[in-house]
Amino acid sequence: MSGSTKDPRRAGGRSGRRPGVSGTREAILAAARDAFAADGYDRATLTGIAARASVDPALVRHFYGDKESLFERAMEMPWDAEEIVAATVAGDPERIGERIVLGFLEIWESGTSREVFLAMIRSAVTHETAAEMVRELITRRLVGPVTRALRVPHPELRAILIGAQLLGLAMVRYVTRVEPLAGLDRGTVARVTGPHVQRYLVDDLDVDP
Amino acid sequence: MSGSTKDPRRAGGRSGRRPGVSGTREAILAAARDAFAADGYDRATLTGIAARASVDPALVRHFYGDKESLFERAMEMPWDAEEIVAATVAGDPERIGERIVLGFLEIWESGTSREVFLAMIRSAVTHETAAEMVRELITRRLVGPVTRALRVPHPELRAILIGAQLLGLAMVRYVTRVEPLAGLDRGTVARVTGPHVQRYLVDDLDVDP
Repeated sequence: MSGSTKDPRRAGGRSGRRPGVSGTREAILAAARDAFAADGYDRATLTGIAARASVDPALVRHFYGDKESLFERAMEMPWDAEEIVAATVAGDPERIGERIVLGFLEIWESGTSREVFLAMIRSAVTHETAAEMVRELITRRLVGPVTRALRVPHPELRAILIGAQLLGLAMVRYVTRVEPLAGLDRGTVARVTGPHVQRYLVDDLDVDP
Repeated sequence: MSGSTKDPRRAGGRSGRRPGVSGTREAILAAARDAFAADGYDRATLTGIAARASVDPALVRHFYGDKESLFERAMEMPWDAEEIVAATVAGDPERIGERIVLGFLEIWESGTSREVFLAMIRSAVTHETAAEMVRELITRRLVGPVTRALRVPHPELRAILIGAQLLGLAMVRYVTRVEPLAGLDRGTVARVTGPHVQRYLVDDLDVDP
């Protein structure tokens, strides 16, 4: 990955603009995110992604191998999970739940992350790699670190209950788009659902120890 | 298509290899539910469904038309929504939330319904007909009737918030199967999440009137 190059022909692209290797690679990843977000893993094709990126399909394979490898690369997160977790735990401890929901909605509603999340949900229902990514986000990268940082009992179960709440919100707000929830502003959604997430964080859970 | 057959031994029977018209139609629907539940709408094919049902693909088309029509027929619910709603609203009013969760998990974990629900979720993320079915279940057939029966303010928004909670539970428990939630018994899940659904039913919601 030597990054930039000034020789456009090295990119191997046939389109007019010839953005160079790193530009071409990034264009392919962006096209892949578009395609996986719109269609899910099963329906997206390397040919379609190549067309969206205006490159030859052979170039997609050359840079990223098969569809599975391209999916994994396209789903790499553009944000710093540790930083998000730290910012969530800091501040008024009574409103951690609200900050979790708000942070989640903000990620969804910002460019690239939105496509990564959409692609993951659209793919996770039938594709094991994507399902594993969703499990990872809940248990190890985003929600799990928050519940562990709070040193409450049953941190794993709490993380999953909160993850379920967030996934469900995403399904109705962004995927199946059920009104009136889809049209509410983020602040209202966080105010209404935040206290529930807060209870999953700190309330006693009626389960065996 | 009268549904009857010439051989009385075969009429309505599920016994042998030549079950007659109504048996064949039901076998195709069952195979379709299997296929849509396992693969979602996009990956399931009429040819694959015909093979599962051990019939000729032409027969599938003859009885059910295209994939879209077959999907709609296969997703028709084997249960009485009104009865489920009535049973949920009756009984201890403090535990309606718990009964909602328990009823939902029971539907999921019983034969045919489980496949219909799985197929709907697996398909709703990329297929508009399935997404519309999910919206219908939340707003008009299952959750909406419960919140309207309770005569609380914002019945639609409450139904959707509860629908989001249930969908999220289904995603983590049945689709992506995240532990420890996937392995907990139904009663425990209902006890832990029921009070949250209860609050979505009756608590004040901090939204404009």
